[in-house]
This record gives sequence, C-alpha cells and structure tokens, in this order.
Amino acid sequence: MNTDFLDQLRKFDIPTCLRVCAGTDGSVTFLLEIMTRHDVTVVTEDQHQVPADDSMASLFDIDVGDDVNCRIVTLVADGVPYVYAKSLAPIDRMPETVRQDMMRADIPIGKILREHDIETRRDFDIIEMVKGASLFGCESVLSRSYRIVHNGDVLMWINEQMPVDDRWDL
Amino acid sequence: MNTDFLDQLRKFDIPTCLRVCAGTDGSVTFLLEIMTRHDVTVVTEDQHQVPADDSMASLFDIDVGDDVNCRIVTLVADGVPYVYAKSLAPIDRMPETVRQDMMRADIPIGKILREHDIETRRDFDIIEMVKGASLFGCESVLSRSYRIVHNGDVLMWINEQMPVDDRWDL
Repeated sequence: MNTDFLDQLRKFDIPTCLRVCAGTDGSVTFLLEIMTRHDVTVVTEDQHQVPADDSMASLFDIDVGDDVNCRIVTLVADGVPYVYAKSLAPIDRMPETVRQDMMRADIPIGKILREHDIETRRDFDIIEMVKGASLFGCESVLSRSYRIVHNGDVLMWINEQMPVDDRWDL
Repeated sequence: MNTDFLDQLRKFDIPTCLRVCAGTDGSVTFLLEIMTRHDVTVVTEDQHQVPADDSMASLFDIDVGDDVNCRIVTLVADGVPYVYAKSLAPIDRMPETVRQDMMRADIPIGKILREHDIETRRDFDIIEMVKGASLFGCESVLSRSYRIVHNGDVLMWINEQMPVDDRWDL
C-alpha cells in the first residue's frame, strides 16, 4: 500500500462514496453498481492505438514504438456520469484470451478481468484534487492513477477523474 | 462475477456503506479506513489450528487431516465494531514468505497480501440476511462468504458478518 495515497485520501473532506470509489483497490464499476443500485454503462469517448513513447515504454517495460491501446470512457449510472477514465494498455501484454474483450469498447475492465479469472493487484500512484477544472459540470475534480499488475507485469495504467459534488450522496 | 450475489445485494434496503463493504471485491479493512477516516484495529477473538474435515478438504482441495488455520477477528474503527470475520486457511498452501504474517493475529489479510505483492482474485459464494441473530448489539446481520484465490488455488475462505444498523451512516 502506498501510505501517502491513503493519508491524502483521508484528509479530503468529500462525500464518503466518492472517497470510497477513489480509494478502492477493487473494481470501481462494481462499486458504482452497488452504490447506485443501477447498472453502469460504459460510454466510449475515444479508442485508438498509439506507438509507445519514452514514458509509456518505461511504464510498461516495453520498446518505444510498440502498440499501446488508449481508451477513454465515461462511467454512467442511472443517467448520471460519475467517472471519466483514461487507460493505456500495451497490446502484446494482454493475455491472448482477454485481448478481444479488452479491445471492445463497452466492457468495464473489472468485468473482463473477473470473467477471465485473471488474478491481479492494483498499485496506486497518485491522488490529487484539481481545482478550476471542468468535468460533468463540476469545477473540482479528484484524480487518481494506478497500475493493474498481472504476473508481475503492468497490464494497464489507469487515470480516473471524479467530480467532487453532491452526486456522490448515495 | 456471481451475478446472483450482486442481484441480492442490490435488493437489500440497507445503508450504502454497508452495501459497499458487503459487496466489495477489494479489501474490507481498507474500505473501512477510507469510510471512517480512522485506523482499523483487528481484535483477535480466537486463533487455532484444526485438522481439515471433509468439507474443508473439499473446499481447499487438500487431504483430510491437513492443518488448517482458523482465525476469528473483529474489525474495530474509532471504538466501533463493524465486522466479525472468520477465516480458514490451509497452512501448507500459504506462500512461505507470507506464512509468518498470516499466522500473526493482528494484521489484516488485505494488508498482508498487499505487502507481499500477492496477486489474487476474490470469488463470492453467498450473501444472506440473518434475522434474530445478535452481533454487536444488533439483531439483523448481513453475512457473506468468499474465497481468496491465488495461483488458481483457494488460499483462504472467509465469512464476514456485519450488523445492519445506523453505524454504517458514514
């Protein structure tokens, strides 16, 4: 556990459900479904492949120029957007059996990992409060980044942004 | 994902934080720390070893008579008990590096797995509402069971019981 991450999260005076989603080491989509009692829809804003630049190559321990899948989605429950998520995943790193699902736009990451019985851990990087932003009509945004690790390799890097307002009073 | 588990959980008219703790596929201790903004203390009620009976041998795919560690703890935050947890773990199944920590009474399971970078998944079994029980002064109790799987083997079986009352209005 990155104790800085937890310490920072505890200090934020934000709705409890937001703090839970921002801090969970499990699936955010799944938590949202439990909290809202509605299905979560994954709305794809963008999906394309890019050649790895220096920082991606370093992050994933791959070669510069290797294919990386870049996906941006919004998680929506009962018509309300809760999370804006950007993910990077080196394509050759994905287990063969899950690659097709991973490349599809509409399936949450957590569900894919679960359905294929993939064992993982989630390593937190940073969490920060961004003021003066604009997300889903909100100017205050909580941003966190973490890596999903499988067989000791970084399978995916994820940045999630969540608006800090009363939509989280669930 | 056991969809029955999720469907049942959604139907319960219970405090959101309780539903979240009962449904998470991550660490409960960690969630409690985020929700309460306090450290969670693990109070050991009992810890001893038993020889595996038929059902344990079947659950863990071990031989009848193999040593199984049985641990009962209460999770307490800010003086309030939230979870009564019973765990069973076949001792020879534990990775050598984590065995010592596992046998210590006062370290939460999630922290041990995390500190040793163990990749896992959690497979849900059942969740049910138990009426007419008595737990931490409460007669209504939510009970769930799940298995922690590592390298395809069941590392641990856990049953958690949580009182259904307003202590979860966090």
